Amino acid sequence: MTDAKAGATEDPREIGTGVVDLLGVLAYGELSAFDRLAEDARTAPTLAGRAALASMAAAEMGHYGLLERYLDERGVGVEEAMRPFMRHIDAFQESTAPRSWLESLVKAYVVDNLAADLYRELAEVLDDETRELVTTVLADTGHSAFAQREVAAAIENDTPVRDRLALWSRRLLGEALTQAQYVVAESDGLAELIVAGTGDLSGIAALFRKLQQQHTKRMQALGLG
Amino acid sequence: MTDAKAGATEDPREIGTGVVDLLGVLAYGELSAFDRLAEDARTAPTLAGRAALASMAAAEMGHYGLLERYLDERGVGVEEAMRPFMRHIDAFQESTAPRSWLESLVKAYVVDNLAADLYRELAEVLDDETRELVTTVLADTGHSAFAQREVAAAIENDTPVRDRLALWSRRLLGEALTQAQYVVAESDGLAELIVAGTGDLSGIAALFRKLQQQHTKRMQALGLG
Repeated sequence: MTDAKAGATEDPREIGTGVVDLLGVLAYGELSAFDRLAEDARTAPTLAGRAALASMAAAEMGHYGLLERYLDERGVGVEEAMRPFMRHIDAFQESTAPRSWLESLVKAYVVDNLAADLYRELAEVLDDETRELVTTVLADTGHSAFAQREVAAAIENDTPVRDRLALWSRRLLGEALTQAQYVVAESDGLAELIVAGTGDLSGIAALFRKLQQQHTKRMQALGLG
Repeated sequence: MTDAKAGATEDPREIGTGVVDLLGVLAYGELSAFDRLAEDARTAPTLAGRAALASMAAAEMGHYGLLERYLDERGVGVEEAMRPFMRHIDAFQESTAPRSWLESLVKAYVVDNLAADLYRELAEVLDDETRELVTTVLADTGHSAFAQREVAAAIENDTPVRDRLALWSRRLLGEALTQAQYVVAESDGLAELIVAGTGDLSGIAALFRKLQQQHTKRMQALGLG
């Protein structure tokens, strides 16, 4: 399957347009997550929480740097790769601006895990090098465990908070999938990657259903199901 | 001179209160710089500038992590070490909130270099391990060269902008030295470190004069003298 990468060129050392788009989405996702986490750090209720979120934001930029170098080595500017997807990712961030520390944490948890699920689905159509890069970039930076701990402590014995956060997590999923559809519509290369990964033309709808199911399971595990 | 560290305890593996305070100031300075740079990244006029500032913010958190670990290995919580100095550093940031991208860059340049000068003055009274840590933490992350380039391009052939930024850099120095005096007044250990480093009781005033002179030279080199 590793030869199936969309837009593969004659020179195997070059990079297909689907892969460029995938890495572009990922890079702008990291830069955007940096912003989100840095802003959330400011609203942290404790100095420890502030430092924890700032460190997680810093880890996103470490990943951004890896993507930038990888693209650069293949003659692609990271800005050029990110640009087509900026408005969709910005739109997602604007439509889901957290109103509290707990909403911030749930958002980071939901988005990080959705991204990880999505790239896991695509991993088998990527060439080895790109797959390794994506795996590194999406490796958990300890953020999930932190968010899980804080959220679990907050919703224990507090049904109204739990209900509000459960609604919030469903809204996040809806907005994320909406913008993800726009992103795929923007990029033939990405659409081809997904079709190659899932094997047929109904692949995109099936992929989104699968992401939705994994999200639901995760929210149940978190106590927000 | 390495035995002169203020508040040194009987156990040489322990850490003096002057050193704890120095590292506490430095750690909160990094966390605070992270905030400042992350916020400035948002106002960057280009995507490249935004990514550059976000990466510099991330580097600050890398340094923060080193300081946290060093203190932790010596039984000192980083939060506890930072807490006495938070309000002075916060007061500095609030009184010098940049109103433009260029003001942000000049601020980062001035503050980073002042901090580096200050710690260079103290380096010889620190034990080897602490000195190495401080040197690493204050190593230039490429920020200065970036700021220099951007500022030089902006003030070339633009006297009004140059004059405004020159005034701004003088205000930054004044505010920084004012808050630095409060920080030293807060910590007997730090005051002792400075006296040990400079050799006499007039050391603090002499140190501040020296910082001022180095700042003036640097501003001249930048074209803001």
